[in-house]
Amino acid sequence: MASPLARPFPALPRVAGCRIGVAHAGYRNWQRNDVTFLAFDEGTTVAGLLTRSKCPSPEVEWCREVLGAGRARGLVVNAGNSNAFTGAAGRAASAAQVAEAARLLGCAPREVLVASTGVIGVPLPVARAIAGVRAAHARLGEADWRQATEAIGTTDTFPKAAAREAMLGEARATFVGFIKGSGMIAPDLELAGATMLGFIVTDAAVAPGFLAHALERASEQTFACITVDGDTSTSDTVLAFATGALGNPPIDGWASPGADAFAFALLDLCRELALLVVRDGEGAQKLIEIRVSGAVSDASARRVGLAIANSPLVKTAIAGGDANWGRVVMAVGKAGEPAERDRLSIRFGGVEVARDGGVVPGYDEAPVAAHLAGEEIEIAVDLGLGEGRATVWTCDLTHGYIAINADYRS
Amino acid sequence: MASPLARPFPALPRVAGCRIGVAHAGYRNWQRNDVTFLAFDEGTTVAGLLTRSKCPSPEVEWCREVLGAGRARGLVVNAGNSNAFTGAAGRAASAAQVAEAARLLGCAPREVLVASTGVIGVPLPVARAIAGVRAAHARLGEADWRQATEAIGTTDTFPKAAAREAMLGEARATFVGFIKGSGMIAPDLELAGATMLGFIVTDAAVAPGFLAHALERASEQTFACITVDGDTSTSDTVLAFATGALGNPPIDGWASPGADAFAFALLDLCRELALLVVRDGEGAQKLIEIRVSGAVSDASARRVGLAIANSPLVKTAIAGGDANWGRVVMAVGKAGEPAERDRLSIRFGGVEVARDGGVVPGYDEAPVAAHLAGEEIEIAVDLGLGEGRATVWTCDLTHGYIAINADYRS
Repeated sequence: MASPLARPFPALPRVAGCRIGVAHAGYRNWQRNDVTFLAFDEGTTVAGLLTRSKCPSPEVEWCREVLGAGRARGLVVNAGNSNAFTGAAGRAASAAQVAEAARLLGCAPREVLVASTGVIGVPLPVARAIAGVRAAHARLGEADWRQATEAIGTTDTFPKAAAREAMLGEARATFVGFIKGSGMIAPDLELAGATMLGFIVTDAAVAPGFLAHALERASEQTFACITVDGDTSTSDTVLAFATGALGNPPIDGWASPGADAFAFALLDLCRELALLVVRDGEGAQKLIEIRVSGAVSDASARRVGLAIANSPLVKTAIAGGDANWGRVVMAVGKAGEPAERDRLSIRFGGVEVARDGGVVPGYDEAPVAAHLAGEEIEIAVDLGLGEGRATVWTCDLTHGYIAINADYRS
Repeated sequence: MASPLARPFPALPRVAGCRIGVAHAGYRNWQRNDVTFLAFDEGTTVAGLLTRSKCPSPEVEWCREVLGAGRARGLVVNAGNSNAFTGAAGRAASAAQVAEAARLLGCAPREVLVASTGVIGVPLPVARAIAGVRAAHARLGEADWRQATEAIGTTDTFPKAAAREAMLGEARATFVGFIKGSGMIAPDLELAGATMLGFIVTDAAVAPGFLAHALERASEQTFACITVDGDTSTSDTVLAFATGALGNPPIDGWASPGADAFAFALLDLCRELALLVVRDGEGAQKLIEIRVSGAVSDASARRVGLAIANSPLVKTAIAGGDANWGRVVMAVGKAGEPAERDRLSIRFGGVEVARDGGVVPGYDEAPVAAHLAGEEIEIAVDLGLGEGRATVWTCDLTHGYIAINADYRS
């Protein structure tokens, strides 16, 4: 069943310089496609963000090793098996799949990126992985973005993708992003959680260094600002590919024509993708936006926002439609960031509920309760200390979360 | 309804130098006692641990201010109103109650400690607070530990207390501790969460500096190692009082006779009190003990343990009786502490499930599933890096937690 916060799948343009193939490898006992193969024209650049987990999958380690070169010809995504915590067998299986993809493309293995999501602790079955990548390669150009998005999904309750455009001088660049994460765990699965895999492809020509810089800046305000349950996957991966097929003069710094437009479109696309993941948060009934201002820095504001967003007591209060601002005070207090109780003010849906260390005189809960009855909740916190600000997003914590994560074995 | 993990209330000895009175102030619309007054003989020393919240209650601020002197004649505890985030009105109310308690005892206000727990954002009603402290003072010596324990409770589902003895040379010292926290939220309450208030009284003579040192050491291995939901109250307080009525030569350092025995008994008592709080964790069905070894330091081991203990995915897996060791790997990976995937080993209930970066060859889930079907779960993680170790405790995350925290308004 799709999340109540699901969005319809959008119409998405082709991106010149990129071809898509999908196939059925059979990583689980299912009939759907579970291998996605993207082939990029020569000259494609790449940048990426990888989980900081100390227990990363071999796929994450591979991407970390090769991203420095900034060149890509292929991307392989496996769904149903994360290959995480599988020791030497898992490393060998992933390496064999990468080598096969490189052979098929006629490129160096280091130009092939890879990501896997699904069960932990079971080595990627190498015969299926290789047969899958061959089958997907044989169909390159036949699949569209929706098929690719569906093929990378695991517990997702709806496919998540978005597009943007940006004028780079005279040229109109196209961006498409697709992402998976945070969805429903099917009864017989044993996932590590809401692994997030996100992929962005643009036809713009961008130097790898600037692509990495723009992606990191965008992530700081988007992927780094979302949380479903505070748990971090062993496999989280975001990769951005720039094929250069547009033929614009390559963007290699902020002084390049179109750099601002490029960065803005990338940021805007990342925000939509990140919010789609929250909308598919396990058990989510409400999307919560938390705006923190008046912090000593933007980074401090983000940490305060995440402390609120990860508080089970705040998330359950929102699930219950309860204007429990005391729990927001509690979460600010525990964030470990500079804060002063008597300068703090809190708004729900634009209505001030607390300031100067206490409840607002004559506080009327009715408009706040009405706001909390909706699907999209806004909490604004001003710390009254400085100019730092951040916005973070999360979802509520419901019986659905427990049902998905605790009940399936009992 | 009492937690399924509840323990019976123990028989508790009197502690010389301490008298107890309880009374009904009526902080909520209930008939139970909600003010507790402890009076201590002259010469009583005190040490305390207070929440690090940046939004502390006035009571916490007062304790922080006066604890440095290390002397106490009285303790007042209010239940039903935390007085947190109540601005100047709350500060004035608390100060008035402290002043009245000092007047009744004939001591300086700075010798009166105070703690409150309950609703946030409503100033302590000063007339009730003063009437309550007078009524409790008038009955000093009439109440026992069980009445005191019940009078400090809010959402607790069972009263929590314990006792210890220690031989200090020839003299047998007595310790009693009582604590509240983590319990059921009644339908019309609006609490900030599981505020923990714990109080320990011993008849030993102990210098305030050593009392503070021993309490801090004990807390590092007990109160600092428990978590229910990772949320930190604005009011958490632990105070230890030493009346000196035993007449032993005061313990003022590790070289004093009986110092080791004293510290050990205090540690052991704190551990029992801390575990009782976890046993009353909101919605708890299982007590989870997480032992981390092989970390680079004890502090690092504790942080890894808390990352596991606070992971909603680990806690829901245990609730579901699911031997999902992949989620433990995930939590170790996200802890932000030194860890190496390929050196990690994991045991459930003594059975090794993973080592050397992968599942144990021939892993048999049956004995692990049998262990997870019980009420007391053991997870052991060895990081294989150093000598650091820690044990932390938590409970599982169940529908009960959601029901308590989200459903009561809907």
